[in-house]
Amino acid sequence: MPEDRTEQPHIVTCTAPVNIAVIKYWGKRNEDIILPINSSLSVTLHQDQLKTTTTVATSRSFQEDRIWLNGKEEDITHPRLQSCLREIRRLARKRRNDGDSGVDSASLSHKVHICSVNNFPTAAGLASSAAGFACLVYSLARVFGVEGELSGIARQGSGSACRSMYGGFVQWIMGNKEDGKDSLAQQVEPETHWPELRILVLVASAERKPVGSTSGMQTSVKTSCLLKHRAESVVPGRMVEMTEAIRKKDFAAFAELTMKDSNQFHATCLDTYPPIFYLNHVSQQIISLVHRYNKHYGETRVSSFYSDIMGEISGHWTLFIYTYFFIKGLPVNCASLSEELKQGIGLEPMPKGINYIISTKAGPGPRVVEDPTQHLLLSDGFPKKTM
Amino acid sequence: MPEDRTEQPHIVTCTAPVNIAVIKYWGKRNEDIILPINSSLSVTLHQDQLKTTTTVATSRSFQEDRIWLNGKEEDITHPRLQSCLREIRRLARKRRNDGDSGVDSASLSHKVHICSVNNFPTAAGLASSAAGFACLVYSLARVFGVEGELSGIARQGSGSACRSMYGGFVQWIMGNKEDGKDSLAQQVEPETHWPELRILVLVASAERKPVGSTSGMQTSVKTSCLLKHRAESVVPGRMVEMTEAIRKKDFAAFAELTMKDSNQFHATCLDTYPPIFYLNHVSQQIISLVHRYNKHYGETRVSSFYSDIMGEISGHWTLFIYTYFFIKGLPVNCASLSEELKQGIGLEPMPKGINYIISTKAGPGPRVVEDPTQHLLLSDGFPKKTM
Repeated sequence: MPEDRTEQPHIVTCTAPVNIAVIKYWGKRNEDIILPINSSLSVTLHQDQLKTTTTVATSRSFQEDRIWLNGKEEDITHPRLQSCLREIRRLARKRRNDGDSGVDSASLSHKVHICSVNNFPTAAGLASSAAGFACLVYSLARVFGVEGELSGIARQGSGSACRSMYGGFVQWIMGNKEDGKDSLAQQVEPETHWPELRILVLVASAERKPVGSTSGMQTSVKTSCLLKHRAESVVPGRMVEMTEAIRKKDFAAFAELTMKDSNQFHATCLDTYPPIFYLNHVSQQIISLVHRYNKHYGETRVSSFYSDIMGEISGHWTLFIYTYFFIKGLPVNCASLSEELKQGIGLEPMPKGINYIISTKAGPGPRVVEDPTQHLLLSDGFPKKTM
Repeated sequence: MPEDRTEQPHIVTCTAPVNIAVIKYWGKRNEDIILPINSSLSVTLHQDQLKTTTTVATSRSFQEDRIWLNGKEEDITHPRLQSCLREIRRLARKRRNDGDSGVDSASLSHKVHICSVNNFPTAAGLASSAAGFACLVYSLARVFGVEGELSGIARQGSGSACRSMYGGFVQWIMGNKEDGKDSLAQQVEPETHWPELRILVLVASAERKPVGSTSGMQTSVKTSCLLKHRAESVVPGRMVEMTEAIRKKDFAAFAELTMKDSNQFHATCLDTYPPIFYLNHVSQQIISLVHRYNKHYGETRVSSFYSDIMGEISGHWTLFIYTYFFIKGLPVNCASLSEELKQGIGLEPMPKGINYIISTKAGPGPRVVEDPTQHLLLSDGFPKKTM
């Protein structure tokens, strides 16, 4: 049915996960193709709780490339979107020329329609651009029939998006080539390696960050001498330690290094001129709470780290009834707090401090959605009206 | 009248200033004799606004060394008090043995009574221990007839006290000897060098710091790799730059480096494990306000730096009517804010953010109070009842 293939849009829908860094990425050595000043390492969060869904359609009948994000048409000429589109098409062309039969030759000359939605608030520290670009690149690759290493392309959309191309525990190796060919993500361990690890995201504020990541990083690279030292002399050792802690499932080592690295990231933000404040009063209180909780028990039972307003906690959940949270996601065992523990912690509850908590765990990488009823674009290649 | 000299107490009263560091001291390489891991530089604040007053008396009739601080008798056996007493007496003995006729031989064997008061709240980031130990050492030296270099003794009471031994702009050279003999304060410029510089202390909270300096520094030295880098590789260059800015009276350079160094100090606190938070929400807001103000005018007209809750501002005062402050000290020219500036700054006023402001300038070092009615000890060597 050659008519069908060219007249009817070719539609693919995929989902991709959010990731949260336990060794932080902050600072680029190349702004254009997004090369970092240090390697980083993250946990991919489970898509049952947090995900981006993207539908990509190609058709001979489309007049131009178009994109709709969370129900609103956006400017497709954004340089980072253009980078991803260009790189996927280049790869498809290269593979076709190399004789790869999987590449959809017809669609290579077609325009694309892209429609994407997140099931969580954008730009509140939840790395929506990471999930978004990972999903875009994964979907485009599927629609054009491209396979293999794609994290280098996702990286050019948004640095940390390269880490959302894999599930479980993922490192982004900074590389040292000028063309960025060796700046890629790599899975350290799959999500099945450490199934008992729990991750709580504490949303203390759904507001946008006062300074965006892109411009914040630029200012930090220009002005913070502590950031330079961190990238050159601290992170390499921490990458080794963190990989080791994950391999051994050593929660205390994993949690401590996660907290230290998060604090050091915020420290370099403060060393930036003018300083960048991402830790608000609520975040500081929760960090203190976690340290007092662990001190009370004499061991690291709970960890916290904050990218604006994020928290990760594992193991013992008694901590959380203390703060009257509304919990979404995986069930949390809310044991009652002993008076002794309350006194050991010695902090007032913050009933209005936290908007809500997302309880999740490590999860898999991007996936194809086989059910065509889940497409975000109709068979004419335009978004459903309900959006 | 030899009877008089031995029966009647020998009484001396002195005052000493607070200082505020523009290149910060944080971290000791020797806890016992207080040797720092980096040099530092401060401005001595004028005693018309902030000072410690100390009266020291010696008498053959005193049974033991005793001390009253802000009206309450305190434990004289505190190791740092003992260091200062021991060192001054050792110096007096040495000078007497060297044949110095100024040393009061009789009093050398006598016990001392010490009485000291601050005219500002203790332990709220206002470096009360610096003024206190500077005043103690200066007064003891006077009563025992010791002259010459005393900053090395004040340093052993409280590190930054050595800088309060001089007026104007003062550096504490870290030194490198193990016995600390070369870890001394030195005047960079007297207070008369830059009389138009104004300093505002913004007291946002008179509460004690959540973590004290002594234990905070210990934890930072143990756990922060950024602090190590700062001390070894950042501060030496900044000492040179700061000295240069002061010599040239280059306000923009002085203010910018002051802010950067304050931020870097707070960054190392955040890089400490567990992290130390000294910047509260109000401090963050004021820092943002200062940067927006300067950005609006396209030049550094105002500077802020915070040791907990401190602010220093110079030059143009229009900023401050914005925040409805109650101002103590030197008069402040409160011009009205233009609508344009308000919009340029774009922050809400914080009517309850600041308790009060102390407006001051650089001032002289410790002084002897000649008026005997100002003694804090009566002629019997005991505190006045009114305290």
